[in-house]
Parts: sequence; C-alpha cells; structure tokens
Amino acid sequence: MKKITPDVERVRRDILRMSEFVSSEEPGYTRISFSKEDREAREFVAHLMKEEANLSVRIDAAGNLIGSRRGESQKPAILVGSHIDTVRGGGRFDGVSGVIAAIEIVRRFEEEKTPMIHPLEVIVFLAEEPSPFGISTVGSRAMTGKLSEDLLTSLKDGQGRTLGGAIEWMGGKPSRIGEAKRSPAEVLAFLELHIEQGPILYSRGIPIGAVTGIVGISRGRIEVVGRMDHAGTIPMEARKDALVAGSEVVLALEKVCRELEGVVGTIGKVEVFPNSLNVIPSRVNLGMEVRSLSEALLHETESLFRKELDRVVQKRGVEIHFDSAISSKPVLFHPRLVEQVARVCGSLGISYLEMPSGAGHDANHLAEVAPTGMIFVPSKDGRSHCPEEWTEFEQVCLGAEVLANMVTSLDKEGAD
Amino acid sequence: MKKITPDVERVRRDILRMSEFVSSEEPGYTRISFSKEDREAREFVAHLMKEEANLSVRIDAAGNLIGSRRGESQKPAILVGSHIDTVRGGGRFDGVSGVIAAIEIVRRFEEEKTPMIHPLEVIVFLAEEPSPFGISTVGSRAMTGKLSEDLLTSLKDGQGRTLGGAIEWMGGKPSRIGEAKRSPAEVLAFLELHIEQGPILYSRGIPIGAVTGIVGISRGRIEVVGRMDHAGTIPMEARKDALVAGSEVVLALEKVCRELEGVVGTIGKVEVFPNSLNVIPSRVNLGMEVRSLSEALLHETESLFRKELDRVVQKRGVEIHFDSAISSKPVLFHPRLVEQVARVCGSLGISYLEMPSGAGHDANHLAEVAPTGMIFVPSKDGRSHCPEEWTEFEQVCLGAEVLANMVTSLDKEGAD
Repeated sequence: MKKITPDVERVRRDILRMSEFVSSEEPGYTRISFSKEDREAREFVAHLMKEEANLSVRIDAAGNLIGSRRGESQKPAILVGSHIDTVRGGGRFDGVSGVIAAIEIVRRFEEEKTPMIHPLEVIVFLAEEPSPFGISTVGSRAMTGKLSEDLLTSLKDGQGRTLGGAIEWMGGKPSRIGEAKRSPAEVLAFLELHIEQGPILYSRGIPIGAVTGIVGISRGRIEVVGRMDHAGTIPMEARKDALVAGSEVVLALEKVCRELEGVVGTIGKVEVFPNSLNVIPSRVNLGMEVRSLSEALLHETESLFRKELDRVVQKRGVEIHFDSAISSKPVLFHPRLVEQVARVCGSLGISYLEMPSGAGHDANHLAEVAPTGMIFVPSKDGRSHCPEEWTEFEQVCLGAEVLANMVTSLDKEGAD
Repeated sequence: MKKITPDVERVRRDILRMSEFVSSEEPGYTRISFSKEDREAREFVAHLMKEEANLSVRIDAAGNLIGSRRGESQKPAILVGSHIDTVRGGGRFDGVSGVIAAIEIVRRFEEEKTPMIHPLEVIVFLAEEPSPFGISTVGSRAMTGKLSEDLLTSLKDGQGRTLGGAIEWMGGKPSRIGEAKRSPAEVLAFLELHIEQGPILYSRGIPIGAVTGIVGISRGRIEVVGRMDHAGTIPMEARKDALVAGSEVVLALEKVCRELEGVVGTIGKVEVFPNSLNVIPSRVNLGMEVRSLSEALLHETESLFRKELDRVVQKRGVEIHFDSAISSKPVLFHPRLVEQVARVCGSLGISYLEMPSGAGHDANHLAEVAPTGMIFVPSKDGRSHCPEEWTEFEQVCLGAEVLANMVTSLDKEGAD
C-alpha cells in the first residue's frame, strides 16, 4: 500500500479560499445554508472535485453535492464527506475541513494512480447546521428517507421560501426527494473527518480522535412559578422569587452533571417574567439539554435532577413544571471502524484518543444506512462556532492521512 | 372636635365606580396615565369634587387635578391626595384609595359643616406610575420645579406624542409649567393615604401604618462575562458558563439582603446571550435594585455584595462588571407627622405600626416642599400592582378617619 501524504499547502489554500465565501453583513465567517454564499462556495467545491480530483459531479434530489469516482467493480460505495454551511458568526474549519480533506485524498489517489475496488463518493451534505427552515442535517436526513414531502412544503424561512423551493434553488429536485435515499446495500461505509469542537484533544496534545459515537440529547423545559410582587414592599423572607428559585435550578443541573461522569448539561435559554427592574419575577422559563453517549446516564441525570427540583420546591415555595424528552438517541459507531482508526493510527505512529462526539453530525443519520466512523482533529482552545475556531493545517492533513488509510483499508477488507 | 366617620357605602361605590374606567384591551385594571381612561376617570373625580364635596376644581399647569376648599384665613394650605393612574394589569386600590378617602373626608367636613382655618386641597397627581414617557410621578415632580421644559419636549411616547403635548391633552398648560411649582410658604403639610402594597400590616392584623419615610433605591447593572461554547462538546469542568455564574450572583444578593435587616434587594431583569438551547451562555446582564430607609445600609449592602461578586469571579473564572448608583435617596418624613398618626390612632383606639414605605410615591417629591406624612392601610396578602389587589372598604375608611383627624389637628396646631 502506497503511503498517501496530503499536501498541506493545497489544503491550506482551499480552506482559506472557502473562508472567502461568506456574508459581508454578518459577523465572523457566516455562510448560512441556502444563502448566495453557500451556493457560490458549493460551485467552488464542485470545481475542485471536477478539475482537481477528477470526480464526476452531480447534485442529488435533496441538494447534496456529490463527486463520484468509479471503482473497479460495481460494489457498494465508500462515502466520505462533511458540510460547508456555517452557523451565524461561525468559523472556517467546522465542516469545511472534512470536505477539503476528502477532496485532498482523492486528488492524492489520482496523483498516485491508486485504483480502488469500490466506488468512492465525496459528499457535501446540504444544510448540516440549523437552517433558516428550523431544521438541521437536511441533506443527510433525506439520505435516510426522513425528509418528508410534508416538510418540504410546510417549512418556510423568514422570506416565505419553502424548504422544497430552497432545495431546488440549490440544484436539488424536491419533487423526486425519494431518490436521495440510500439503501444499506449501496453503501459500504461512511467516514467523516471533523474538528472536535471541544478542548479535549487540544488540551492533551493528541492529534486524532477515534470517535466512538455521537451523544444522545435529552431536551427539557423547566417552568418555575413564583409570585409577582413589588420589589420594594415585600420583605426578603416573604417572597416567592421565581428567579432566585430558578438560579438554584441552574446550579442544581450543573452539580448533578459534575457529579456524574460522561454527561454534560446546559441551561442555555432563559425567559424571565415580567423582566422588570422593580418587580419580583413571577415566572422563569429555562431551556435545558443533557448529553451523553449512554441512554441510561441520560435517564439517571434526569432522575437526580428531578430530586433537586423537589428540593427547590420545598425550600422556596414555588411551583416547578419540568418536561423533558430524548430528542436524539445516542448513536454508537460501528466498532470495526473505531478499531480501524486505532489500527491506522498505530501503523502511522500517531497517538489517538477514543472519544464520543458531543455535537451532532450528518453521521447521526448515515449511521442508520451504513457502518459509520468519524475522525476528530483538535480544535484550538476547544473553540468552535466562532471566528476564533482554528485547527492547524498540518493537523487537518494528519486527519486526512488517517482518513485516506481507512478508505484504502476498507476498500481491501470490504472486497474480501 | 366632631368625630368624622367616613361613609363606607359611599367609599365602596366610588372605588368600584373608578374601576370601570379601565382599558378593555389590557389585563386586570389598566388605566395608564395619559390614556382615554385616565382622562375619563379624572372627569368623574372632578364631578365628585364639585358636586359632592363642594370643591372648586382646577387643573394646574402640570396637569394635576386639584379641588380646593376655602379656609377661614389665607393661611398656607393643607394638601391631601394621591393618584388614579395604574400600572398595566394593575388593581383597584393603589392610588384610588387615597383620592377617594380625601374626597370622602371633605364630603364629611361639608356634611358636618366643619370649618377649617387653612385652605384644604384635594390633589389627583398626574402620572404617578411609570408613564408611557418613561418617567413616573410627573405631576408631583412639577410641583417641586423638577419637570424641565427640556423633558416636556424631548420625552415621547410610543405614538410620538411629546410629554408636553400629552399634559396639554390632560388639561395642563405645559408652556407655563413653572406655575405648578409650590413653595414651602404656601403649604402647611401634605398627607397621603395609600395601600401598603406589602404584606406587613395584613399579616400582623394591624389596620394602620404610620409611614416613617420612603426607602432610598440603589440601582445596579451586573454584567457577567463567561465564554460562549458548544453545549455538547465542552466538559463541565472546562466551562465558563455565564449563566451558572450569574445564578450564583442572584443567590448572593438574596443572601446579603437576608443577612442584613432593613434592606430588600431584587434582581428583576435578566438578559442572556446568545440565549440558545445548545450554546453555553457567554454573557448575562442582570438588573438589580436594593432599597432601604438607611443610606448607610444601602452602602453596606453594596460593599458586602461586591465581596460576593469577587468570590464568584474567583470560583468561576468569569469577569463581572458591576455599576451601581443611588437613584433615589431615602426620604424621612417629618417626625411630627409620624407622631401625629400615632397620637390620632391612640385617641381613636386603633392599633398602628411605624414602618417605612418600600415603594416610591408622589410624597417623595412633596417632602421637598412641605412636612409630609403618609398613612398605610393593609393590602390583602400583600398583593399589589395586580388584579387581586384588595383592601377592605372598612379599612380604607379607618384610614380616612385617621386622615380626617390629622387634617383637623394640623388645622388647629398649624394655626397656633
């Protein structure tokens, strides 16, 4: 097996070039899905696919941009890819690293004249981040048949466009959305390189994460009902201050998640009523989420948190209403692919860490169709979804090298 | 001295009649200052003044509605009164009780043919509650010369009306605003009956509060700066969650105010950034206020609170910026008037409690011009500024009886 070494200068050039396709009116690097910038950036990626990687390019019915390389046989395909849309005020590496890495390894395969038994597809998934239509992972969702015609017509953005109309504008064929669906028989495996978006690899100086799965998410809404009163006339001990009680709730979730291992929990959204300087708050709504790779741990966290809520109710004389549900189940990646990352890293002399992904990805959906694996590269200071998001280009290339080796290994093993 | 007994049925009738002049489009009993309802309710009050209390009615330059009764001499006047505007979604007793009580005692004076040496004025102050122009106590402010021409032209409501224009619409003469100013030489005393708006009298079963003064208010803004991060990818111990730190700040203010006596502190306003379910909050702004009748206690509270903020900064690794200033100094009422409430209650066999007012009133301003006193009557369950606001009509009348006796005492003592 030839050693595939990605070209750092080329990867740097492409990632930086991609960062120019951003909105001039938004902060940071903003390339919202379905925007002009998103479409232009995809045209540039399509150009790289065609002109530099010798891929045959198409846009599927769901608007995913796909570059295909023929295999020596009509075996199921190996899929690699990621996305290029960003959050508002985002960075330059989330998604883009995985797309450019995928293109780079095909360029190197072409240069090294590396034949493959299986067809290879480089995929730019449509709208991975939360889109103006209120849903994320639009393209990968369609690949599992979960983007219904109902969603295509009912979801609208701020300008009144339907999701279907927007997909069509991006080059898809929403009237034939079913054609985007992939069946397990067509796909040998899906691999995605992505930045970690957290501090673990960076802080430990480890270049590669062998992703074991994607955490499940339990989302909840907590309503704390106290009593609205005049801020000047009610002695401290006679109050039922919903914000004071709500503050204990925020600290309680933090305490529970710190005491357990393998769980993170966040209260990110707060509404206070009436939210007036001289009125004791009557009601506080809190939006929370808890993430873990273990569904049992999600349930245990909720159960411990409920006990804390009972304590706050007793202590503060407020009412607390709490609803929560698992909005996305943990996804465990195929053990063979996790192991393969380990094996490839071992053979290349690269240190790695097995770790779950705390963020969702297109891989959540692809895992329903085919054995799926992910490779993480370090995020400087753990920052992501912000202009400071950074990964050294050498580290992207190290990840791409692991990715290339996984593709060639899979190509051989899958053909046995 | 004749015993003046207010007529409970008449007081009940008038207070309930007043509660009909409210907006049909707003919750509870809403009669915002400068609204159609406010103007209509003032017309009804003017009718009562003229037809039932034999007062000569005028509207001063600042829009205060004033009913005057002649005294036997041109001595300085005794002023009694309150306001009739409400907060949005307010109740039926705040302000109105004091206005109807004042009219009732004049009706009884007339019926009993009680002559007075000093002129008596019943005043309905314009816009005591926060007005659509962003300021409160508009009319009483003008009585101390603090409603500048600049404010009259620069302050505008949501419809673009100037404050001056709105005062004119209410019957005032903003071009001659200076004429509303009262000088100490013209005023013997100002007395206001008001509901307590707190639970103290009600919970202790005491019918009368002898108000010692109005608490000062220190207002502050706390900005907690943490670090925005992805809610899924950052381990609990690596976070700088501004909301978790902000929750400790909320609890710290409560702790400090509970440990001190004679202080209340409230955080009523919260802004969280970016306020998104899956993002660790980067910044939290908190709006706070602390109230006490003692300026020294306001400073002590701030100093202890600052120590707590330092503790949160150390523990959480966040930045905290805190600005605060005394927005209204404590007002101590004239000791002779406080004592007089006590004496009158004693002579009538009514129990009373000396207590500060935790809420601001028109009396804040009037105290600059003349010896000022207030009488509180109980608020059921301490509720106020809400539709449930309630005081038994018998209790309003007991307060009115104390008020009548204070007026006649002052009339005699002031004439000595």
